[in-house]
Amino acid sequence: MTKYKLSYFPVKALAEPIRFLFSYAEIDFIDDRFDRNDWPTIKPTTPFGQVPVLEVDGKKICQSNAICRYLAKKCGLAGKNDWEELEIDATVDTIHDLRAKIAAYHYENNGTAKAEKLEIAKELVPFYVERLDEQAKKNGGYLVGGRLTWADIVLVSLLDYLNYMATYDIIEKAENLKTIRDNVLAEPKIKMWIEKRPNTEL
Amino acid sequence: MTKYKLSYFPVKALAEPIRFLFSYAEIDFIDDRFDRNDWPTIKPTTPFGQVPVLEVDGKKICQSNAICRYLAKKCGLAGKNDWEELEIDATVDTIHDLRAKIAAYHYENNGTAKAEKLEIAKELVPFYVERLDEQAKKNGGYLVGGRLTWADIVLVSLLDYLNYMATYDIIEKAENLKTIRDNVLAEPKIKMWIEKRPNTEL
Repeated sequence: MTKYKLSYFPVKALAEPIRFLFSYAEIDFIDDRFDRNDWPTIKPTTPFGQVPVLEVDGKKICQSNAICRYLAKKCGLAGKNDWEELEIDATVDTIHDLRAKIAAYHYENNGTAKAEKLEIAKELVPFYVERLDEQAKKNGGYLVGGRLTWADIVLVSLLDYLNYMATYDIIEKAENLKTIRDNVLAEPKIKMWIEKRPNTEL
Repeated sequence: MTKYKLSYFPVKALAEPIRFLFSYAEIDFIDDRFDRNDWPTIKPTTPFGQVPVLEVDGKKICQSNAICRYLAKKCGLAGKNDWEELEIDATVDTIHDLRAKIAAYHYENNGTAKAEKLEIAKELVPFYVERLDEQAKKNGGYLVGGRLTWADIVLVSLLDYLNYMATYDIIEKAENLKTIRDNVLAEPKIKMWIEKRPNTEL
């Protein structure tokens, strides 16, 4: 049987979409959460100096999104055809563009630049959220194709991290995205994961 | 027959990987390059305020990478199995991480923050290039699977944009990546595209 080991900092953030998908797919994995003090030692052993890293039977691979797409194919959450896969991929990349706008502000160390990036985020975050909300409305309460796909999983599993960085609930006024959140968190296998996962702020 | 229209600024940048793939796949497309002055009017008509946007029989879709993956499936440049697709996806996302490090510096308006981001780029760009070069060496002169895939197309088609932002040839010392560049640019269908495309700096 294939052995999976997922290595990341002891937080949800970019590893959580992968953990949600492993849980949904009912695939056992080693949830390796290393201490931040060990990062300088671990970093050079990763393919590109980044985590999360997934080890599949000893082969190391990085990139959260690429790993999510791989797992989605194993549990029926990928697209049904090339066009649906394109729609899911575009939606997931848009969610990560939204994340990048919030992160650009959150991780900026320079005071003046941080204030400038906050202004950009203040305009763009509600814009992205509103458009994604319209998309969810058109697709019957899911992001793509009127059924659960890994795009919904990525959105919901990233929300704690996005809200932590933004310091508010970014989907507060987005009724259709809130429905997606409720539905994903009510999925029995996701619910079980959330009950057993370590409790962390982000 | 399906009608494709690709809309972008009159530059290579993020649209060029899509144009390379259309050319390689021998699929006709309208190469719509709009004037920068028209962007404020065009922007609200795009799905998420961003370009490139591809119209497929009137349906609009965004996200350069997602579109590239879609086209790669149509011309034999996608992975042969789930694992190879994962390797290609991870590589492409890493190339875009490299781009993001250069872009963070290039597009920063704040003087002090720009200097800080240049220091980060100076360390990380050679690191990424070196690791990608090692990967190309291991894979017999291609990024994945010992044969041409859309990961190679993305790298080579983005190089002019990356080098423009970095203000130097980032793969100058990377012999294996230079081989990839030579091989991709020598592909007859890519060569034809480069001969007929409009001449732009980036």
